[in-house]
Amino acid sequence: MEQALIKHYEWRGKIETALRAPLNNAHDLSLAYTPGVALPCLEIEKDPQKSFDLTRRWNTVAVVTDGTAVLGLGDIGPLAAMPVMEGKAALFKKFGDVDAIPLCINSKDPDEIVNTIALLEGSFGGINLEDISAPRCFEIEKKLKERLNIPVFHDDQHGTAIVALAAVKNAMRLTGKATENTRIVVNGAGAAGIAIINLLIKAGFADIIACDRDGIIYHGKEGLSDTHKGLAKRTNPRNITGTLADAMNGADIFIGVSAPNCVTAEMVTSMNEKSAVFAMANPTPEIMPDIAKAAGAYIVGTGRSDFPNQINNVFAFPGLFRGVLDARATAITDEMKLAAAEAIANSVTSLSPENIMPSALDENVAKAVAKAVAKAVYNCAGGQQ
Amino acid sequence: MEQALIKHYEWRGKIETALRAPLNNAHDLSLAYTPGVALPCLEIEKDPQKSFDLTRRWNTVAVVTDGTAVLGLGDIGPLAAMPVMEGKAALFKKFGDVDAIPLCINSKDPDEIVNTIALLEGSFGGINLEDISAPRCFEIEKKLKERLNIPVFHDDQHGTAIVALAAVKNAMRLTGKATENTRIVVNGAGAAGIAIINLLIKAGFADIIACDRDGIIYHGKEGLSDTHKGLAKRTNPRNITGTLADAMNGADIFIGVSAPNCVTAEMVTSMNEKSAVFAMANPTPEIMPDIAKAAGAYIVGTGRSDFPNQINNVFAFPGLFRGVLDARATAITDEMKLAAAEAIANSVTSLSPENIMPSALDENVAKAVAKAVAKAVYNCAGGQQ
Repeated sequence: MEQALIKHYEWRGKIETALRAPLNNAHDLSLAYTPGVALPCLEIEKDPQKSFDLTRRWNTVAVVTDGTAVLGLGDIGPLAAMPVMEGKAALFKKFGDVDAIPLCINSKDPDEIVNTIALLEGSFGGINLEDISAPRCFEIEKKLKERLNIPVFHDDQHGTAIVALAAVKNAMRLTGKATENTRIVVNGAGAAGIAIINLLIKAGFADIIACDRDGIIYHGKEGLSDTHKGLAKRTNPRNITGTLADAMNGADIFIGVSAPNCVTAEMVTSMNEKSAVFAMANPTPEIMPDIAKAAGAYIVGTGRSDFPNQINNVFAFPGLFRGVLDARATAITDEMKLAAAEAIANSVTSLSPENIMPSALDENVAKAVAKAVAKAVYNCAGGQQ
Repeated sequence: MEQALIKHYEWRGKIETALRAPLNNAHDLSLAYTPGVALPCLEIEKDPQKSFDLTRRWNTVAVVTDGTAVLGLGDIGPLAAMPVMEGKAALFKKFGDVDAIPLCINSKDPDEIVNTIALLEGSFGGINLEDISAPRCFEIEKKLKERLNIPVFHDDQHGTAIVALAAVKNAMRLTGKATENTRIVVNGAGAAGIAIINLLIKAGFADIIACDRDGIIYHGKEGLSDTHKGLAKRTNPRNITGTLADAMNGADIFIGVSAPNCVTAEMVTSMNEKSAVFAMANPTPEIMPDIAKAAGAYIVGTGRSDFPNQINNVFAFPGLFRGVLDARATAITDEMKLAAAEAIANSVTSLSPENIMPSALDENVAKAVAKAVAKAVYNCAGGQQ
């Protein structure tokens, strides 16, 4: 991957500004700048909602980080996080035709981060939070949602949950199992794991077991954080205890957002028939696909592009924001996330155990997601119109 | 200008995002995003200055306002200011090839504005302040300069000063008058007027009289603000008193950044021979060019594109920022401003009383300004390299 560094030196930035208004003669200048520009200013002053019609706000999303939880790199700071944010902004444009502005905030104080974003609300049509460490990310997202009138979305939580649910949906189709009886184990109970579980519950799954480094999370377990106490109430209806191996015994679906190589072949073999293993740890999955397959898994997915069934957030965020921007939603609801997951799952043609996810380069996925999400906006309380 | 409003509805934004990195296949994605993007992140973590090499920071400027002093419209707020900021960003790209990001801050508190910008410093290579009311603009600029390691420039002050000095320089060439004996009257002692006076002093002019609504500002005058007390010490060496008419009597050059129609034909007639009248109030100048000419002015300039000698900030800011970004300056010094003014003045071919300023559409002006400014960076303390 030395080539990636060379390319970054060549590119010197992965996005740039382009003109939408012509500036070729004095007349053009008088329309786009003085004196003509006074008219749209006065229109917006009269009716603030016109900022979505007369400026780029309707299509502009801030991609915001504090650099505390960047990819697999951890707390590398706001400056070093910028290549990821620029990459994200490029993906937003490529797949969603969304104008994304990367903003890296040099603060770790949740209230200061919230205030900075809130003061800039009027410049954007949406906020995509990115790579912010837990539990700060929960507080920042919650406070922003309370304070802002534009959609706020933490991709590491909800984008991951949407694509995981899409994978689960297609696994259910292939196996023909019933939602109510399906046992799902989620390993990793941080930001992504909790969001996945919450969305699975919304999608009707009732038997979900959450695990972390200390094994199964259950109601009454000693030393649980408040977040995990809440999780214990929503999950593990049979209130089983033990290790990850105990949880996986007889499970139908494993979803990992945890650590490399923490799942053994024996654990996979102990799962129910026609099991699905979604080992999403990056870059090294919880179990390598060939081992999981040999151990009896019917379907295996990872976060990687060099194996089949890549479960990648890029299926979700460009189309999701395209949809909420088009529908001018003021928030992103669970219904919109469910609609996005369904649209991603439905984008797969020739469904098979080796082909449960779309191609990351299929530009039709974002279009389908956008359409489904916009429809969900109109059908639910998130829409203004 | 109804057409300007129609066009703004058509454009729905005057700038947008464009891709610089290809995203056409899985290999492209692996270079621009995961896993390849980790390498430039780690490089920047090791050496923060690499953010200027591996991201768009080297070419990105924030165009920041609080919407308190927008064009001739006043305090219309951050949302309504966006069409102007987008127009400015478009001009930055067109003439300077600078990527400018408009940010409208919903606060009037100088410290909160400073803090918001400072927390975002790492996302930008420079800060262009715009349309912030006086005296808050002075405090905000001063505090940002102290806190930031990237150039901070309040265009309403210093951009205006640069183009006014360029006009003065070419007036001096046409009249052949000596700098030390030239009498200049500046009407309007707000942000722009004070910046103009400061730059004229740096350029060697010694006999400058500042006026405001209360007439000539002089040392010892009752009721002066601290800012104007300081101004009185730097100007008016003959310590004359009286009205604008008294100031203009015998003056060589008039510069107005004040109010419509506040200069009479009689005042112009009372000026020295070969007088220059730069009536820059927008959109209605201090005196209309035909009246000033008929009253005896040798050279007349305004801020308007429909009269000869348009004195327009667009000559300055795109090239100035191009120059400081190219030279990676950490501040914009008076020497750089003087170099910019000289380059603008030198860009005029066929100098005549009706042709002292370049064409606003001449793309060579910004190139010449950038070159002169970059040279000034290397010659002075502002440069790092």
